Amino acid sequence: MTQADQPFNLRRFLLSGGGWPYLLVPFIPLAIVLELTHASGSVIFGASAAGVIPTAALMGRATEELAARSGPGIGGFLNVTFGNAPELIIAFFALREGLQEVVKASLVGSILGNILLVMGAAMLVGGLKRERQHFDRTAANAQSLMLLLACVALIMPAIYELIIGGSLPSPTEKSQQFPSDLEAMSVGVALILLATYVAGLIFSLRTHKDLFNPEHAAEDHIGEPWSVRKAVIALAVAGLAVGVMSEILVGSISEASETIGLSPFFVGIIVVAIVGNAAEHWVAIYFAARDKMDLSVNIAIGSSAQIALFAAPVLVLLSFFVGPFPMALVFNGLELGAIVLAILIAQQVTQEGESTWFEGLQLLATYAVLGLVFYYV
Amino acid sequence: MTQADQPFNLRRFLLSGGGWPYLLVPFIPLAIVLELTHASGSVIFGASAAGVIPTAALMGRATEELAARSGPGIGGFLNVTFGNAPELIIAFFALREGLQEVVKASLVGSILGNILLVMGAAMLVGGLKRERQHFDRTAANAQSLMLLLACVALIMPAIYELIIGGSLPSPTEKSQQFPSDLEAMSVGVALILLATYVAGLIFSLRTHKDLFNPEHAAEDHIGEPWSVRKAVIALAVAGLAVGVMSEILVGSISEASETIGLSPFFVGIIVVAIVGNAAEHWVAIYFAARDKMDLSVNIAIGSSAQIALFAAPVLVLLSFFVGPFPMALVFNGLELGAIVLAILIAQQVTQEGESTWFEGLQLLATYAVLGLVFYYV
Amino acid sequence: MTQADQPFNLRRFLLSGGGWPYLLVPFIPLAIVLELTHASGSVIFGASAAGVIPTAALMGRATEELAARSGPGIGGFLNVTFGNAPELIIAFFALREGLQEVVKASLVGSILGNILLVMGAAMLVGGLKRERQHFDRTAANAQSLMLLLACVALIMPAIYELIIGGSLPSPTEKSQQFPSDLEAMSVGVALILLATYVAGLIFSLRTHKDLFNPEHAAEDHIGEPWSVRKAVIALAVAGLAVGVMSEILVGSISEASETIGLSPFFVGIIVVAIVGNAAEHWVAIYFAARDKMDLSVNIAIGSSAQIALFAAPVLVLLSFFVGPFPMALVFNGLELGAIVLAILIAQQVTQEGESTWFEGLQLLATYAVLGLVFYYV
Repeated sequence: MTQADQPFNLRRFLLSGGGWPYLLVPFIPLAIVLELTHASGSVIFGASAAGVIPTAALMGRATEELAARSGPGIGGFLNVTFGNAPELIIAFFALREGLQEVVKASLVGSILGNILLVMGAAMLVGGLKRERQHFDRTAANAQSLMLLLACVALIMPAIYELIIGGSLPSPTEKSQQFPSDLEAMSVGVALILLATYVAGLIFSLRTHKDLFNPEHAAEDHIGEPWSVRKAVIALAVAGLAVGVMSEILVGSISEASETIGLSPFFVGIIVVAIVGNAAEHWVAIYFAARDKMDLSVNIAIGSSAQIALFAAPVLVLLSFFVGPFPMALVFNGLELGAIVLAILIAQQVTQEGESTWFEGLQLLATYAVLGLVFYYV
Repeated sequence: MTQADQPFNLRRFLLSGGGWPYLLVPFIPLAIVLELTHASGSVIFGASAAGVIPTAALMGRATEELAARSGPGIGGFLNVTFGNAPELIIAFFALREGLQEVVKASLVGSILGNILLVMGAAMLVGGLKRERQHFDRTAANAQSLMLLLACVALIMPAIYELIIGGSLPSPTEKSQQFPSDLEAMSVGVALILLATYVAGLIFSLRTHKDLFNPEHAAEDHIGEPWSVRKAVIALAVAGLAVGVMSEILVGSISEASETIGLSPFFVGIIVVAIVGNAAEHWVAIYFAARDKMDLSVNIAIGSSAQIALFAAPVLVLLSFFVGPFPMALVFNGLELGAIVLAILIAQQVTQEGESTWFEGLQLLATYAVLGLVFYYV
Repeated sequence: MTQADQPFNLRRFLLSGGGWPYLLVPFIPLAIVLELTHASGSVIFGASAAGVIPTAALMGRATEELAARSGPGIGGFLNVTFGNAPELIIAFFALREGLQEVVKASLVGSILGNILLVMGAAMLVGGLKRERQHFDRTAANAQSLMLLLACVALIMPAIYELIIGGSLPSPTEKSQQFPSDLEAMSVGVALILLATYVAGLIFSLRTHKDLFNPEHAAEDHIGEPWSVRKAVIALAVAGLAVGVMSEILVGSISEASETIGLSPFFVGIIVVAIVGNAAEHWVAIYFAARDKMDLSVNIAIGSSAQIALFAAPVLVLLSFFVGPFPMALVFNGLELGAIVLAILIAQQVTQEGESTWFEGLQLLATYAVLGLVFYYV
């Protein structure tokens, strides 16, 4: 191993504890100082957005280290549970601020970002030096089906709202209250999604674990393994830091979006989603470049499915205790159109179990088209 | 065979002439008595719904026995023609009562029920004891394509109606008349669907029969074979009984739905659809448990395709002679959304030719989400 | 070869320089005379529609001959660039006449026609004598993904238009101006599509050319090869003739559609699309009958992708210089519904890499359903 790894010293460094995302660490104290000194909203927003990235990266790393020490069962559980913790924490604070439409936009944005941006960049980078890359389509297809189920759950309440004569939320609003029928329906849908998510954990960690946890060579692990003690402390520190950064970030969204001239919708669906998933982006591209396409696709599609089946319903339930009024699972037209199309694209891309650089580029182009349309809101 | 079958005596009994659905036979005379004594609508509805199940089961059994005696060509034709007879008979009476939206809801509900509930339960039950089950994807894909064609036929008239400034039917109405253009268009679409259906019969019974009628072991047959005479008599009796039960059932829908507090839409899309397909449910699960997934998937997807390409157009044409005014092929928003998503899910599930218990559970979860949303109408 | 080809003399003749489409050559001077003598619009329309077909066929033939002489790289580039030249030329004149909705309808109609009519007829004819035909699914899938990307680009601006409170264009209008936001968005989307198209050229002509340019036997070539000189002259003559016919055709659409009683929408989406793609139809069926399904599917799906990713964005950009006001990429509801469903069908049909006559027939039935609905506009 030592021989082969000699030339990768820089990359190892960037991906290890002192690596790439950690170059952004200085933004953490900066964001705190700016917030305390009541600087301009857009400056606070920029600093805290940059500051979220290293905290999310540390959280991901610590979770992985802890998982590696816990045996496959509990490890897998830790991994999937904390996998989207940063997104959840950001959304929690946004919910408390009453920015329900921003929360929904960031959920949709995370799914779009994972399918189109993360998987697209991974396939593009990974495919540049190879004719084609392969991955296990059975696992990818199982997760694509979860996305289709989520699709039903996200779309049908909106159709119901339209049919009873209501209207979908406008992307320019911060929050909108829906009839209590829709709130109750959202709770029911959320519970069905969560139950399916739990069944999915049993499926992937117990009855069909071979499908999702193929044997990885030692080199898949980035850097030296951590001790349990170190991992737990890092997880606690990271969780706290994500929370602080998220609160600052969310507090500055409204003012920042006015100053910069971007709608809160755009900020939620593009900026917050990219910031919250920055660590996944990096890791997925890293594995794709090493031709571990199984891992890359699993991160991209798996994260999307997790957001739809775990983060979204948890936030619906939380919204009954946090924020001004419950958040109904009613998305606006742009979100619905984008999510359906992205899920169809995920199906098409994963069904063959093969990828090329051009597929990656097309995913990125699709993301660019969506971003462009969202920009005009 | 005798050895292996010893432990399955109960199951054989339940599936044979005196089996499970026939435990509901007492509901047949009960429903008739209740109807004649003008009992409360919801009681009549419950009794006649229970009474439909054994009559539909007998009809299915008699058709199969007759088909088994007729050689593959005519046998196959009998099977597909009478396969959805109970649904057709129920819908015929609903049409005569002027309950056009209930008819359309029950058509959509049959398709949803077959794809999500029947196939879901079959995959879940069949997959509990096995890592994965296999089925022939070529046959399943051919039928999925028929569903997509049906999708076009069900959606485009609705878009046309919206474009000319009209509105889709409300799920709370019993019937709605559309401009004569849409009635004429519906006839044209119905004729194209029927022509495709006939071509599909030629395809599956003549040019590509090996694909759809694989050799089955003798054990696929449930119980002793019947004589032609017995089968014909049973078919006639069953047909009559289905008719009587259906007329009573349909006559009580309006009153029952008011009393129970469920919309006629919910009754049509969930209750009537489940009752009319109860026999298929049972048989599909039975074969899945025996790892004959080919047969299960064929029943689920094939029945859906038959409803869309045969039952729906026949009912459109019939509606010109029965009921207050012709039934146009214009569905409401909830029906359209559900049918498109269910067909996409059918595509995703069948494309690989493999299933697991988790796929089955996800189909059931999707059905639960749809049922929940429909409940609030 | 001589032996085998003896019985195909007539077919060779029809496909060679003096072949089938060229029987329509007399319509070229006829259309010109009718135009100059100001005959009735519907007569001019019929004659010029018939006259377009041989000019488009000659253009296709000349391009192919030139490509065959230029080596695979430049040859492929010529082929894809001039492949849809007739459609582009017709659309250019329609744009100049201010018939923007006819242009958009003809773009959608070309995609629908290629997927449903061309591929359907090819699979039907090819499958009549064979149990099933095979084609390379990797190439077909890469192009299906391009269609999905196009789908996003065609749908999202329409959703945006609806969300800002605007309405989709009515199929009965000739043109409609949209807010300048949508014009700017359309330019951005067009540029992304064109960039992806260029990347697709690099993919299919350079990095993955083996996938798209399999070795063909000499018999794939129709008739004797031409000299470069002959090919260039033929291309120039054909281009000029296509231009003249297109201008006459487009000039007569408005009057003709009134006289015949068909909407300009129907003329654009069905008639113009069939006329502009007549040559592709013929060639795709020809290869399917010879069991070269790879080529047939490539023509059908590839042409669709080219129209969406090349012709459509080029016309958007051109519309800023030609015609009354820019053409925004906002399609009407019927176009959107039809295109999404056709692309889903293309996905389903190509994913297996197999076809039967019944698949072909179902594609044709879908086209018939669409045509029927469009007829009522």
